[in-house]
Amino acid sequence: MSTRVVAIVGAGLVGSGWAIVFARAGLTVRVYDPQPKIRDGFHAWAETSLKELEVASLVVNAADTLARLKVFDTLEEALEGATYIQESVFERVDVKTEACLAIDKAMDPSAMVGSSSSGIPASAFTQACVNRARFMINHPVNPPHLVPVVELVPAPWTDPDCVATVRELMKEVGQVPVSLTREVDGFVLNRLQGALLNEAWALYEEGYASIKDIDATVREGLGLRWSFMGPFETIDLNAPGGIADYAERLGPLYFGMGNGRMDHPWPHDVIARAEAERRLELPAGSLADRRAWRDGQLMKLAAFRQTHKPKRSPSS
Amino acid sequence: MSTRVVAIVGAGLVGSGWAIVFARAGLTVRVYDPQPKIRDGFHAWAETSLKELEVASLVVNAADTLARLKVFDTLEEALEGATYIQESVFERVDVKTEACLAIDKAMDPSAMVGSSSSGIPASAFTQACVNRARFMINHPVNPPHLVPVVELVPAPWTDPDCVATVRELMKEVGQVPVSLTREVDGFVLNRLQGALLNEAWALYEEGYASIKDIDATVREGLGLRWSFMGPFETIDLNAPGGIADYAERLGPLYFGMGNGRMDHPWPHDVIARAEAERRLELPAGSLADRRAWRDGQLMKLAAFRQTHKPKRSPSS
Repeated sequence: MSTRVVAIVGAGLVGSGWAIVFARAGLTVRVYDPQPKIRDGFHAWAETSLKELEVASLVVNAADTLARLKVFDTLEEALEGATYIQESVFERVDVKTEACLAIDKAMDPSAMVGSSSSGIPASAFTQACVNRARFMINHPVNPPHLVPVVELVPAPWTDPDCVATVRELMKEVGQVPVSLTREVDGFVLNRLQGALLNEAWALYEEGYASIKDIDATVREGLGLRWSFMGPFETIDLNAPGGIADYAERLGPLYFGMGNGRMDHPWPHDVIARAEAERRLELPAGSLADRRAWRDGQLMKLAAFRQTHKPKRSPSS
Repeated sequence: MSTRVVAIVGAGLVGSGWAIVFARAGLTVRVYDPQPKIRDGFHAWAETSLKELEVASLVVNAADTLARLKVFDTLEEALEGATYIQESVFERVDVKTEACLAIDKAMDPSAMVGSSSSGIPASAFTQACVNRARFMINHPVNPPHLVPVVELVPAPWTDPDCVATVRELMKEVGQVPVSLTREVDGFVLNRLQGALLNEAWALYEEGYASIKDIDATVREGLGLRWSFMGPFETIDLNAPGGIADYAERLGPLYFGMGNGRMDHPWPHDVIARAEAERRLELPAGSLADRRAWRDGQLMKLAAFRQTHKPKRSPSS
């Protein structure tokens, strides 16, 4: 890989996490955000975060990593010499379109651009770019430096070689890339999350279980397996003859369960009930603390996984 | 709790795990299986497993725990003095019906019975029992001594006091009980799993991504969050204003994604493709080894969670 300088466009939560991903892997990172407040706060945030990560053994040397991060006041400066650009501006088609057109104008034509969009396909906001063949979705989970998966989704006009190059770059910096062959709303991650959420809301709406107990079913059950095996590997190991054995026997049952459910969007009154139930569990004033707790848990989990790496199947 | 003696009926993988759950919590466990081969092998299996668990700090004293486990040659002997009975025979209505009728005949009328059924409701196989008010579903995840969640599902005729007592017993022995208000096929756990699987199969069928990459999306992304937060807590923390804020903004999007999908059962030819893809990844001859690896990972994860316990929200 010759991609030694990368640029971050949009340095909110997602973009900042991306900056750490690249810097801790040894790359030079040039950061830009249109908001001066975010630009001004970035260095202090990065310093604190990197120290925490160093304590958790997730960054080898915080000071060295910090030295590879630099904030610029203009997009043009930030893009100088960058062979890869990660765009993480606010997720709305008009905002993404404007940001991509500006990147398109300032980028080296040999650079590649990944967008952090979590569900809007690149074809919705890169059509008018001169270098549109070099734009794609590279969707992380928040925060990217603690959750490794990224989804690579090409627009119909994206050059497959660019996708392959970015896929290699992602592996190089320690992320786990998954590749979609073509666009679909929500990509894979949010479609899977949405399917589970739709069923969870339906069970709650119909009064089968509380929010708390539905959460516990995942947290103390399904989620444990899924944190080191995917859903297919889980069923592959859950029947004597493997996945086909499982699917032929249980597929009709699962299909039957899902059939005819969720024929309406999540209803407002059910959302209000859920909100009330969650606020009993966690007052609105504690949301911020609980988010910090979540990031701390992800950090501990990342450190744990570093020692007990969830391997792919033996042959791969 | 006065439940100091429990009985295990059916000592395959699930029943054996249950035996460990109760014995390591200090209860006396009387084990029965209709198959002499399983009865004969139980002690050696328990000894090995308990030693492994001791090494992983998941059992305080393997020898003491083993001493609390006893196998009996008849159902009647195993049920003597048992105030709680966990039924884990093969999951087919006729097999469950027969086992429950035998338990019903031999049990102390003040005892309670939980069935390990993973999806068939208790009303399908306990109707003819004299003590049917004392039967319910108590569905664990395999293996129960490493995955804490259990689903309590009453039949229409189950005495609510019995469910409450078993719920307390489950907490006492270190499991995490979730309560369903009434029966539904697949309960909560397998309905949630099924919803995600249906979407995963649809994405695979339509060629958006490989089995390997769909698995990675969960293993390296969604599953990490879900292993210490449920799906509702995840979205509660993922929008500035909490769950209602999230649901009102993203609900229609998620509903739209799911709408119209999976209008047919998992197709045979798609299952065959998935099987071929998995077998390239993991040859059939390695399935058993990989299952042992899975249980080892669950053991490490359980030990990790013991040190970094995923707390419920602060107020609970």
